[in-house]
Amino acid sequence: MPYINIKITREGVSKEQKAKLIDGVTKLLSDVLNKKPAATFVVIDEVELENWGIGGLPVEDYRKTLSNQ
Amino acid sequence: MPYINIKITREGVSKEQKAKLIDGVTKLLSDVLNKKPAATFVVIDEVELENWGIGGLPVEDYRKTLSNQ
Amino acid sequence: MPYINIKITREGVSKEQKAKLIDGVTKLLSDVLNKKPAATFVVIDEVELENWGIGGLPVEDYRKTLSNQ
Amino acid sequence: MPYINIKITREGVSKEQKAKLIDGVTKLLSDVLNKKPAATFVVIDEVELENWGIGGLPVEDYRKTLSNQ
Amino acid sequence: MPYINIKITREGVSKEQKAKLIDGVTKLLSDVLNKKPAATFVVIDEVELENWGIGGLPVEDYRKTLSNQ
Amino acid sequence: MPYINIKITREGVSKEQKAKLIDGVTKLLSDVLNKKPAATFVVIDEVELENWGIGGLPVEDYRKTLSNQ
Repeated sequence: MPYINIKITREGVSKEQKAKLIDGVTKLLSDVLNKKPAATFVVIDEVELENWGIGGLPVEDYRKTLSNQ
Repeated sequence: MPYINIKITREGVSKEQKAKLIDGVTKLLSDVLNKKPAATFVVIDEVELENWGIGGLPVEDYRKTLSNQ
Repeated sequence: MPYINIKITREGVSKEQKAKLIDGVTKLLSDVLNKKPAATFVVIDEVELENWGIGGLPVEDYRKTLSNQ
Repeated sequence: MPYINIKITREGVSKEQKAKLIDGVTKLLSDVLNKKPAATFVVIDEVELENWGIGGLPVEDYRKTLSNQ
Repeated sequence: MPYINIKITREGVSKEQKAKLIDGVTKLLSDVLNKKPAATFVVIDEVELENWGIGGLPVEDYRKTLSNQ
Repeated sequence: MPYINIKITREGVSKEQKAKLIDGVTKLLSDVLNKKPAATFVVIDEVELENWGIGGLPVEDYRKTLSNQ
């Protein structure tokens, strides 16, 4: 009975893409560990860009530093 | 000083119901483990239906498969 | 299909106490929100004392400050 | 920069199986959302059987009720 | 490659304050454990007041009990 | 009443270093958001190297690819 939590930035991920993530990760747990899909929970969290940090910066500012390199 | 996180689907849970969850789980920790309510945190996360998967499907699609059985 | 995560300090919680937490929180979700127990997951995390902080101190040091008051 | 947390029961999952989970979920995020593997974190939590509840019971007790049906 | 999750109540925290949290916690991990900022993720969750409980009460009700003392 | 969860790889972090993390992040929340230390929880999770993935690989394998560049 696995529980999988996927955290991504909120940037227009579609319903179809979310369904693919749910399907794919459930299959992965079934293939690798023989876990039953009916007992596999997947929760996707979409995080606002200003709430996600990397490199000590909010992600939008971090991306600017990369594109300026 | 327990920390309890309750994740449920976002489906019109009322303020009163949330208060009951907070009260109930805090009492449970106090009854079973003698934890002080003043040092017990409860955080409720309401998750959009399209962000919760079970059985390899978003929860709404999964429910349809059950009702078709 | 709720998911509940209970974090407590690792201080000799027994199997029976854990079973009571699992039973109690599952009943709570059933009573308040009519959630099916068979689709309710509970995960208990026991955290080493030196890994839990409160008041800016590891919990053992924090408790000493309280008992010295 | 996704972060994926996989929680499973601690039941002898091998290093190879964990590597497959890490590889598979990273590829999934790359395929579906074009996320860079170098910025994809995966954390696997193995949870003791007595710390995981379903159906209001610790998972081992729950499995017994299923096999008795 | 640390992952830090900061949960706070949703009460008008500004973009600048979030940037300071991201910067500060990333520096802390770098100073104390020599972790590389570019491999440090910070995720801030802002939780609605009615979804956060303490002392067995939603946080707003709890604060009223304190101010009445 | 913030809750902060710090996830790091399990690689010999000392009690003193953990105390510094707890102290530092509690001060940060106090400085930036005026949060009371007595109502700030910090939980540190140390994750086994084989349970942490980055770049589609367990972290030890990932580091080897970096050092081979």
